[in-house]
Amino acid sequence: MSSPAVQAPLIALLTDFGLSDPYVGQVKAVLATAAPAVPVLDLCHRVAAHNVAQAAFFLAASLPWLPPGSVVMAVVDPGVGTDRRVIALDVAGCRIVAPDNGILTLVLSGADGFRAFDLTPTTPPVSLTFHGRDVFAPLAARLAMGEAPQALGREVPPETLQRLSGLSPTRRGSVVTARVLAVDHFGNVVTSCDIASYAKAAARRPGLLAPRPMPLVPATTYAAIPEDAVGILAGSQGYLELAVREEAAARLLGLAQGDTVVLSLPEEA
Amino acid sequence: MSSPAVQAPLIALLTDFGLSDPYVGQVKAVLATAAPAVPVLDLCHRVAAHNVAQAAFFLAASLPWLPPGSVVMAVVDPGVGTDRRVIALDVAGCRIVAPDNGILTLVLSGADGFRAFDLTPTTPPVSLTFHGRDVFAPLAARLAMGEAPQALGREVPPETLQRLSGLSPTRRGSVVTARVLAVDHFGNVVTSCDIASYAKAAARRPGLLAPRPMPLVPATTYAAIPEDAVGILAGSQGYLELAVREEAAARLLGLAQGDTVVLSLPEEA
Amino acid sequence: MSSPAVQAPLIALLTDFGLSDPYVGQVKAVLATAAPAVPVLDLCHRVAAHNVAQAAFFLAASLPWLPPGSVVMAVVDPGVGTDRRVIALDVAGCRIVAPDNGILTLVLSGADGFRAFDLTPTTPPVSLTFHGRDVFAPLAARLAMGEAPQALGREVPPETLQRLSGLSPTRRGSVVTARVLAVDHFGNVVTSCDIASYAKAAARRPGLLAPRPMPLVPATTYAAIPEDAVGILAGSQGYLELAVREEAAARLLGLAQGDTVVLSLPEEA
Repeated sequence: MSSPAVQAPLIALLTDFGLSDPYVGQVKAVLATAAPAVPVLDLCHRVAAHNVAQAAFFLAASLPWLPPGSVVMAVVDPGVGTDRRVIALDVAGCRIVAPDNGILTLVLSGADGFRAFDLTPTTPPVSLTFHGRDVFAPLAARLAMGEAPQALGREVPPETLQRLSGLSPTRRGSVVTARVLAVDHFGNVVTSCDIASYAKAAARRPGLLAPRPMPLVPATTYAAIPEDAVGILAGSQGYLELAVREEAAARLLGLAQGDTVVLSLPEEA
Repeated sequence: MSSPAVQAPLIALLTDFGLSDPYVGQVKAVLATAAPAVPVLDLCHRVAAHNVAQAAFFLAASLPWLPPGSVVMAVVDPGVGTDRRVIALDVAGCRIVAPDNGILTLVLSGADGFRAFDLTPTTPPVSLTFHGRDVFAPLAARLAMGEAPQALGREVPPETLQRLSGLSPTRRGSVVTARVLAVDHFGNVVTSCDIASYAKAAARRPGLLAPRPMPLVPATTYAAIPEDAVGILAGSQGYLELAVREEAAARLLGLAQGDTVVLSLPEEA
Repeated sequence: MSSPAVQAPLIALLTDFGLSDPYVGQVKAVLATAAPAVPVLDLCHRVAAHNVAQAAFFLAASLPWLPPGSVVMAVVDPGVGTDRRVIALDVAGCRIVAPDNGILTLVLSGADGFRAFDLTPTTPPVSLTFHGRDVFAPLAARLAMGEAPQALGREVPPETLQRLSGLSPTRRGSVVTARVLAVDHFGNVVTSCDIASYAKAAARRPGLLAPRPMPLVPATTYAAIPEDAVGILAGSQGYLELAVREEAAARLLGLAQGDTVVLSLPEEA
């Protein structure tokens, strides 16, 4: 964000508000009123309710694809109305507005050169239960219209931001213990093993140790996974995925978002 | 809508068309053809099928957040193709196009100074089963482009509009009988007790009498509700809500949209 | 598309990516980066996973409603990453980008005067598993910005395009064997009997032979179907539909997308 007076190319939304209520619509109505010329892009509104870890993954995986200067409103906020801070984070050419509850964890771990601002309102908002509409959307609109975060709050040290623990895998020899970051719509299991660190090992002699031991077939595409086999591949979201051809690997393996998965990923000799 | 020749800032959509078919997409295609410069905002498309009462609540709760001059197309229309009228209603600075089936009930009860127009087409539309695409969208586009409703139909007395009964709560002493307007995505139970009339009483010694007697804990935020308690708070949609911390109150209480709920809300002595 | 240098009025999206992941959001982020001035319209993202036939129906039913010059990105692509071709098809005033897997079947069968181009990338994309984001969206953006398909690939004979079999109904005397193209959100059963060929017969003495024999009531609107009867009507998507008043016909009849349905539709004597 070199020039803070420039209007953002878009406002991206990431929430757990779902699509069966008018909540997202009301957020968009506030944005359309306060920043009418800025297009709105839906990243996802079906993060599981209150699931900050899943939102942290969706946010980090999506940020690289947004146009530079985008403003992201990322609100999964079980602590709405409490004293958790409201943060603006400048990172990777974008500006994120979010509650300080760990939702920024994976964005922070993958980046350097970020700046954080505390934009917690000093006067009570319209509602105490819908800060997405009444706190975050007005802030996102003002930032998208070119207001500087310095004018809306004060800079804070990034190391004061809340971070979730347990998202990074651990390795002991060839045994890698990871987290299921997400089970996607197709039933593919996204592990927390990032491609940069683990893809080479996964392409050689990978295996699953838990929840149940079985060989894994290295693959590059879903269609290339043999029938009756569970494949492991470098997924599009930046992490290793377990997948079954035109089937739901998660159901087959009994895995859900947040579960622990133990892999055998021998390093090169 | 002081100047009818001005283009609307946006067209907002509220329907029960769902998101698993191309119905909403086809509506948007018609709008993009007839009013290409007017942005479209989705309020909600997952109103329960044919549920006019839920749509009436979503519409009234969302209207205050829209930019002045917005055109709203609100279509939950089990009587599609019958002789129910097509109405344009000017209210609260916006213009709503909707079937005359009660969907305007809560908007009308909360406002004054509205005008209604009968825009029922006099020639048969392309289809008899999808008036959202073939009747309401073309009308919404023409209104959004600045055409006056007087040019598309004739003014009618607002008291001729259909209204749903049973949405307003009744009080007998401290016993308030209300309707469940909605169960939201998080499982919060939105009652038909509006904040203006009932919030003060709910903040003092509230209780639930039916479907099952239990004390309610007055709260201002979801996070402030004690574990194992059911809280009652002034919700973001303008009504009292029953909520459980990071849980679904509706499931706990066995309540669904449309159910009756009886509260004890003693007035000030 | 008379003048290929003109920017498209919009990019329409049809996918099976669902709405619970950030996949559609990442596609939109790529489009917003490469074609920032072109609005994006969601036709539907909840095509059943890998269901090319359902997507073929949604595409053909929606195409006539889009503004001329629209670019459609239609991606239901179980063969992602294999050697299936990437096709651009000029048809009915629009330009479709899609995998060559049969998704264009119904668009092709209803049109003439189309041209097809092979736009299969010659260099590997960023990911091998998410061509919606990494292959189709960049191509859709370039086409929407006015680049000619000839500049991005080479023209191919339309008869080389993959087509699905079994979608067209067959008639033997009065017995018509058809496919269930879709069960919509309301439970209406959309058959593969197009209105042009079958609506007249359905308006006279229609009956259902399988999955279970019963008379059908010809109707023009859902509300006109008698209680306890199954109606048959000329639906808004261009095909005969089986419907029950304010109920799910599909559940009543035990029918799902892809099933076979046998109708008695006697032709005029």
